[in-house]
Amino acid sequence: MRLKDLGEFGLIGRIEKLFPPGASDVLQGIGDDCAVLDQGDYCLLLTTDALVEGVHFRLSWTSPRALGRKSIAVNVSDIMAMGGIPSYALLSLGIPPSTAVPFLEEFLVGVREMADFCGVTLVGGDTTSSPSGLLISATLVGRAPKEDLLFRSGAGPGNRLLVSGPLGESRAGMELLKRGVGTDDPALQGLLDWHRNPTPAFPLGCRIGEARLASAMIDISDGLSQDLGHICTRSGVGAIVEESSLPVSAAARRAAALLGEDPIAWALGGGEDYRLLVAVPAPNVERLQKQILQEGCGPLLVIGEITREPELRLRSKDGALRELPVTGYDHFSRGAGFPSEEPKD
Amino acid sequence: MRLKDLGEFGLIGRIEKLFPPGASDVLQGIGDDCAVLDQGDYCLLLTTDALVEGVHFRLSWTSPRALGRKSIAVNVSDIMAMGGIPSYALLSLGIPPSTAVPFLEEFLVGVREMADFCGVTLVGGDTTSSPSGLLISATLVGRAPKEDLLFRSGAGPGNRLLVSGPLGESRAGMELLKRGVGTDDPALQGLLDWHRNPTPAFPLGCRIGEARLASAMIDISDGLSQDLGHICTRSGVGAIVEESSLPVSAAARRAAALLGEDPIAWALGGGEDYRLLVAVPAPNVERLQKQILQEGCGPLLVIGEITREPELRLRSKDGALRELPVTGYDHFSRGAGFPSEEPKD
Repeated sequence: MRLKDLGEFGLIGRIEKLFPPGASDVLQGIGDDCAVLDQGDYCLLLTTDALVEGVHFRLSWTSPRALGRKSIAVNVSDIMAMGGIPSYALLSLGIPPSTAVPFLEEFLVGVREMADFCGVTLVGGDTTSSPSGLLISATLVGRAPKEDLLFRSGAGPGNRLLVSGPLGESRAGMELLKRGVGTDDPALQGLLDWHRNPTPAFPLGCRIGEARLASAMIDISDGLSQDLGHICTRSGVGAIVEESSLPVSAAARRAAALLGEDPIAWALGGGEDYRLLVAVPAPNVERLQKQILQEGCGPLLVIGEITREPELRLRSKDGALRELPVTGYDHFSRGAGFPSEEPKD
Repeated sequence: MRLKDLGEFGLIGRIEKLFPPGASDVLQGIGDDCAVLDQGDYCLLLTTDALVEGVHFRLSWTSPRALGRKSIAVNVSDIMAMGGIPSYALLSLGIPPSTAVPFLEEFLVGVREMADFCGVTLVGGDTTSSPSGLLISATLVGRAPKEDLLFRSGAGPGNRLLVSGPLGESRAGMELLKRGVGTDDPALQGLLDWHRNPTPAFPLGCRIGEARLASAMIDISDGLSQDLGHICTRSGVGAIVEESSLPVSAAARRAAALLGEDPIAWALGGGEDYRLLVAVPAPNVERLQKQILQEGCGPLLVIGEITREPELRLRSKDGALRELPVTGYDHFSRGAGFPSEEPKD
C-alpha cells in the first residue's frame, strides 16, 4: 500500500496508535492542535507546522515577508485553538544555496513581525540546505493554566458552534492567484492577503480559554467540515451547520461569481481559514460573545450546534437537512475532496 | 549576494542579531545546542534538527528503521550537549505521496526504539506531502536544574578538552558507502552503522551535567575543529589539540588506508560524530572521568586543552604546533572544507 491510499488521517491514526501518551504528565499527546504537558502549576503547549514550497506556497504568489509572517501565524493559530498563550518559537529552515540573501532577510523580517505581534520570542532553530525548494518548519511553545485549556474532545450535545470570522477567504484568494483572475481588483485584495498572510486569532484564543465558558475548540486549517469532523469524532457527537449562518464575505461571493464557483463550498471545505471553531454550552453563548467583544476581540458568530446523533449535517436555506460533505485537504490522497489540488498537491 | 556566499554560520549570525533573547526567562537563545528557558525551579531545553533526503541521507544507503532512530538521536545529542534530560518529541514529516506504507511503518518503529531508549515520549507533530524527497524535522524538549547546565561559553584557559568516543567513524562510513568500497567487510560494519544509526551520548550528557565538574560542552556534529571553534568563540579562548591523543579506531584507520585518505583529517573535520566535547577545569578531570565510569558510561578521553590565546592549534606527533584547519560541514558554502560534498551537498 502507498501513502496516497492510506491518506493523511490514516497515517496520523497509525502514528497515534504507535505512540500512546505514556507518561502521566502528558495530558494530550498526538491528536489535538497542540500537545499538552502538565507542569504542576501550569501546562506547556507544543505544536509544529511546516510550510513546503510547491505544497503550501509558491514563491511567485507571495512575498518573503508574508511567508515569514505566515510561518509563525499558522503555529500561533494552534496555540490559540487550545486557549493558550504563545511564548517561544524554533524555526527550522531548508534553503536552496542559490537563494538570495535579501530574500532571506525579508523573510526573517516577516518572522520577526508576526513573532512580535504575538509576543513570541524566537529562541533557536536549524538551518540546512535543501536540494529543491524552500522548507519551513516552526515549532511553538505556549502555556496556560490547566483550567483554561480547550480540547477537541469536550463538545457536548446542545452546544452551539461559533466561528471567529469569515470562511473561505483563503481558498478564494488561492483560486484567484491560481487562475490569474481578479488579482488587480482592489475589492479582492483582502482575499489574496488572507491567503498569503493570514492573521491568527490572537489574542482571541487565549481570551476564550480564560473565559472558561466554552467546551471545545479547534482552528480551521483543513476546512470547516473536516475540522468540525475532528471535534465530533473526538467528542463522540455530531453537528448541524446552518448554511444561512455561514459567514461569507461580499468579496468571497464576488470572487466565486467571477470564477463560476460556489462560495459556500469554499466556506465548508476551503482550508487555511485560521479562524477558531468553538463549541459553547447554550447558556454561556451570549455571555461569551459579550465578554469577547468587551475585550476588543472580533465577534463570535453562531453557525450551528452539536447533536447527540454522530452525523455531520447541513441545514440548507430552505430548511432541508442533508449530509455535510466532508471536503477539505488531505495531503496524500488524490481526489479526497480538494477540488483543485494545486498548489497543495 | 547568494546564501552560498554568506555561508551557514553567516546566516545564523544574522538571525542571531535579528532575534536577541529578549524575555528575561531566556537564559540562552540562538547560538548553543539548545535554547534554555528559566522556569523557576528548573530549566526547559528546546532543540530542533532536520534530516533532508539528498542532503543528510540517501535511501539507498540506509534503512527506514535506522533513519527513524537517527532522527531522534541527533536531537537527543543536543540535549546531552547541555547536560539535560530529554523528555518530549515532536516529529514533522514531509513525505512523497508515493511512499510505501511499510517503509513508513519501519521508520516509525525506529523512531519509537530510539525514543524509548532515551526516555522520550512523542507527543505530536505534523504531516505534509513533499514534492521531492523525504523531509524529517524533529523537535526535542528536555529539562535540567539550572546548576547542571553546560553552555558553549563556559570554557576557561587551562581547562582540559575531553571527548566521549572515537572520532571520524561516521565520515569513514559515509566515504565507504559513497565509493561502494568495503561495505561487505565485517571489520568495517561498525563504521557504516555509526553513519546510518549513531547512538547519542545518552545518558552520558546528563551525568556530566549532574556531576557539576565541567565548564562547557558541545556535541560534535559539524566536525571536531568546527565545534571546538564554537566553544572557543563563545568562550573567548583558544585551544591546542594533541594529534597523538585523538581517538581513531582501528576500523577507521583501515577504511582510510583502503580509500587512500587521512583518518586524522576525518577525526578533525568529519562531522556527524555525535560524541560530546567537554571542557573541564584541570583539577576536576580525574574525578569526572572516574565518576562517569562508575556510573556505567564510557570513558572520557583527554585530547587537548583550552588556551588564553584565541587560536585553534594542533600539536603534531613530532611536537610541532600548527594552525588547526577548521574543516567541517557548511550547508551552503561550496568548498568550505568538506572535501567531498556528497551526499550532504
